[in-house]
Amino acid sequence: MLLSKLVSERTKEMPADAQIRSHALLVRAGYIKLVANGIWTLSCPAKRICSKIEKIIREEMDAIGGQEVSFPVVMPKELWEESGRYAAIGEEMVRFEDRCGRPMVLGMTHEEAAVHLCKNWVSSYQQLPFMIYQIQTKFRDEARSRGGLIRVREFVMKDAYSFHADKEDLEAYYDKVYEAYNRIFKRIGMKDFVAVKSDSGMMGGNVAHEYMLLTEAGEDTIAICADCGYKANIEVAESVREPIGDEISEDIAEVYTADKTEIAELCDYLKIRPLRVIKAVSYNIKGSDQTVLVFIRGDLEVNEAKLKKIIKKDIAPSNLQDSKELVAGNIGPIGLRLNNAIIIYDKSLQNCNNMYCGANKPEYHLKGVDVQRDMQITAFYDVAKVKEGESCPVCGKALSLRNGIEVGNIFQLGDKYTKSMNMAVLDSEGKAFNPIMGCYGIGIGRALASVAEESNDEYGLIWPMSIAPWHVYLCPLRIDNPEIKQKADELYNQMTKAGIEVLYDDRDISPGVKFSDCDLMGIPLRLVISPKTLANNQTEIQSRDRRHKLNPNTEDTIRVIQELIKE
Amino acid sequence: MLLSKLVSERTKEMPADAQIRSHALLVRAGYIKLVANGIWTLSCPAKRICSKIEKIIREEMDAIGGQEVSFPVVMPKELWEESGRYAAIGEEMVRFEDRCGRPMVLGMTHEEAAVHLCKNWVSSYQQLPFMIYQIQTKFRDEARSRGGLIRVREFVMKDAYSFHADKEDLEAYYDKVYEAYNRIFKRIGMKDFVAVKSDSGMMGGNVAHEYMLLTEAGEDTIAICADCGYKANIEVAESVREPIGDEISEDIAEVYTADKTEIAELCDYLKIRPLRVIKAVSYNIKGSDQTVLVFIRGDLEVNEAKLKKIIKKDIAPSNLQDSKELVAGNIGPIGLRLNNAIIIYDKSLQNCNNMYCGANKPEYHLKGVDVQRDMQITAFYDVAKVKEGESCPVCGKALSLRNGIEVGNIFQLGDKYTKSMNMAVLDSEGKAFNPIMGCYGIGIGRALASVAEESNDEYGLIWPMSIAPWHVYLCPLRIDNPEIKQKADELYNQMTKAGIEVLYDDRDISPGVKFSDCDLMGIPLRLVISPKTLANNQTEIQSRDRRHKLNPNTEDTIRVIQELIKE
Repeated sequence: MLLSKLVSERTKEMPADAQIRSHALLVRAGYIKLVANGIWTLSCPAKRICSKIEKIIREEMDAIGGQEVSFPVVMPKELWEESGRYAAIGEEMVRFEDRCGRPMVLGMTHEEAAVHLCKNWVSSYQQLPFMIYQIQTKFRDEARSRGGLIRVREFVMKDAYSFHADKEDLEAYYDKVYEAYNRIFKRIGMKDFVAVKSDSGMMGGNVAHEYMLLTEAGEDTIAICADCGYKANIEVAESVREPIGDEISEDIAEVYTADKTEIAELCDYLKIRPLRVIKAVSYNIKGSDQTVLVFIRGDLEVNEAKLKKIIKKDIAPSNLQDSKELVAGNIGPIGLRLNNAIIIYDKSLQNCNNMYCGANKPEYHLKGVDVQRDMQITAFYDVAKVKEGESCPVCGKALSLRNGIEVGNIFQLGDKYTKSMNMAVLDSEGKAFNPIMGCYGIGIGRALASVAEESNDEYGLIWPMSIAPWHVYLCPLRIDNPEIKQKADELYNQMTKAGIEVLYDDRDISPGVKFSDCDLMGIPLRLVISPKTLANNQTEIQSRDRRHKLNPNTEDTIRVIQELIKE
Repeated sequence: MLLSKLVSERTKEMPADAQIRSHALLVRAGYIKLVANGIWTLSCPAKRICSKIEKIIREEMDAIGGQEVSFPVVMPKELWEESGRYAAIGEEMVRFEDRCGRPMVLGMTHEEAAVHLCKNWVSSYQQLPFMIYQIQTKFRDEARSRGGLIRVREFVMKDAYSFHADKEDLEAYYDKVYEAYNRIFKRIGMKDFVAVKSDSGMMGGNVAHEYMLLTEAGEDTIAICADCGYKANIEVAESVREPIGDEISEDIAEVYTADKTEIAELCDYLKIRPLRVIKAVSYNIKGSDQTVLVFIRGDLEVNEAKLKKIIKKDIAPSNLQDSKELVAGNIGPIGLRLNNAIIIYDKSLQNCNNMYCGANKPEYHLKGVDVQRDMQITAFYDVAKVKEGESCPVCGKALSLRNGIEVGNIFQLGDKYTKSMNMAVLDSEGKAFNPIMGCYGIGIGRALASVAEESNDEYGLIWPMSIAPWHVYLCPLRIDNPEIKQKADELYNQMTKAGIEVLYDDRDISPGVKFSDCDLMGIPLRLVISPKTLANNQTEIQSRDRRHKLNPNTEDTIRVIQELIKE
């Protein structure tokens, strides 16, 4: 490829809205161009990277028996009604009517389409297990797309669906995908990634893992135990907390606390630590006026993902200013009178004594509360966010929290879709059953951006060889010199013939611009042909990561490059 | 691939709505499954064929300097307003509002996106010419999708856009694409295809060619001169017609024609041939009450595509029953009183004499009409449909008409998009100009279906080796015999290792079912392992097209297959 013809532009100008490095660098290097909020065009080098990522994914999916298929982007409403998700999914799903007035949706995931394809065509247990996958454009109308290709509205995704006769078979296959994913991320050159337990969210099912690239720019948080290897998304992460309290439980008593209703000011006023307080946090069930009241230790935050999973309903924070039953800022679990409410007690309160809590009347709290003695609690739930330094639920060592970008996910779906969509298969005795499913996703553009986020320096991007848009940046200096031009042309043709992918900077411009463009674009190897080195019958090869700098003879150049590519 | 695990189904049952062979066979062989009107899921074998077609297209596009990019499926309204097509395109373009109420469209073609990408990034004539292309899903809300994958609503298309400094450069590149397209269709195994001149329709521009697969199932009509090679879509095809008439012009006179208003009954009544009549055909400009009246020889039909191009407006047939100015069935060009109408005279009338036409009053026609003597016509236009057997406009020999499926198209667009969207580039003197564009499309699914339409027999599909989903259908008979199973497994592994693509029919069913499934699916080579042949240390290879039937020794089998694949 001749750089002079490449539709692309390199600039020093920082995009105004770029908050993370991959976004800024991909725009500055001319890899992506914004078309609308969360919608991008990929220029040739970005498309080349995506194709290489897709090829690696295909190889790994095929290696575990995957069949590539192609589902439609546009689907009829009916398909999504069968599974119940037409109603369950909100504004992030695009809906429109076709010219005949039939309601359609844009696919954001393809469980329904997968079951539709397999239904009727798969009728016997002997056809199980199998896995189908596609690499296809999806649209999810994100409320806040951001970070270049990290969180977009339109994206290409590899989505795979496996079908099984029983849970054991699904679990065995899930493990295979787990390993295949590790290989994929490794092969595309991702370094600091981990697989963590996660919430299965709108997909349904129970066991799920997310693959996270650990990076400051990530908007997910992961709890990690360096000691035993425990890893979990903060949405499902657990930790062990010792009960708070003293040897002897004091008597319960009211204390005057004036207008101190916030935890911080209350603790200041009473000269106690927040973990001595039983905090009340209230929500409303979405679309209803039912209250959800959570009691939790004062130093902890409610993890809404955990809470939703327990009450199995969507929630929104509630405003208690107008409540007739609750005294905002003085709510406590003792003497509370509340109709039509769900009350949840967090595990952090279990066995605590000498605690403080609201007295359910203005300007007063209770002290000396012993949770076991004073409250009739039948069940405690884990609804607290894990904090840095808390104890690992497996080994008890300190947990640390890291930011991460979700680069892939795998789910054990169960029979949610096969049951609702009536996909039945006969077992060996002729009895019909619903196969159980797994589903497995990787976003191609996000994978590209994640590698970019991890691999860069002050000068630009640094692509791993396996997904680099080109292997070599051929960089003749003084191309106006016919000898230089001839040698560069010759090497370009030879390398191309040898299967080496070359971006040939054929522009008659200064070495400085050429070098900085090469660095910004992140091509792994830079091959310089200059009057100086050519006078010694040499070329100059430098690797983008600065690990190699060589001056081979011109006739050895291609061999050296081939070795560097293999390495 | 094990056939037992392939998500697919083969059936003898004809799909009720299938009117063409490729539709019926692709459904019957389990290649495609309908999701909604004009929207299909492709199963693994169909996806494999598509991938091979795409690979061939990529190779040919790259060979003429193409850069693969990726444009979005969902685009903002503004982009299509810039070019004027948001208003110009009708219901076939899907429009919706995103969650923030911003109007969006689904891409049905990507001229706007291409100019958007190149604008600003391409600023100098030195960057021209270049070509960018993508292979991407598109949605066109067809009023009547039909024919399986032939006319669909959602489809994957290779669309390419080239940019040039001047017309000569565009023409030179257009010729290169023309040749590349010939190579593509040949390589994917299409046999009876031709490139024909076409109308550029909604794309704008003037020079355009369509690649047509000649087949009865085609819904396009092409005029072809077997002698000189003239070929054109009926929408733009021309022919030469001699003027109708006699040596001496008779005097004009009224004749009583009773209630005979249709050409056929009129001719019957008057004992004349239709070509002696000047026929009137009326239309309305769409969205207005202006009449368009065409006078044409009685034996010819109006070609509405030609007519629209001349009047540069959209038209609809008009109903004259309520007209106060026109006497339906007796309209003639002489003595006609008509306000606010466009009147078009077809070339077929030029220099005719002793013609008949309506007398503009009920029950009467005129005879003895001499077009030159009696009518004041300043311009004749070619708005007639070419008929089988008419004279070729180039060499005068007889034209024949053939049906065809449009499998690709190429257009010289000019500056329609670069001008309306303000893409300016500086020439060598620093003066800004709008580059001119070409655009070039091939539908992947339609290409697959077209090959299927051309390559089949009474037993099923016959895929060309170049795009076959698998090269070999491995067909052990009596797989319950351990020796057979072992040999089949062995050959499967050896072939797979040798890069041969094998569909392994590992089912324990009758030879009849295996053979008919193999024929229906159209896999090029069938390799049978049976107790009978294995006893002689032989296998049996038969090609799907029945040209080869061989019994090599087992140890020669793979070599023989490799040779057959190469051939």
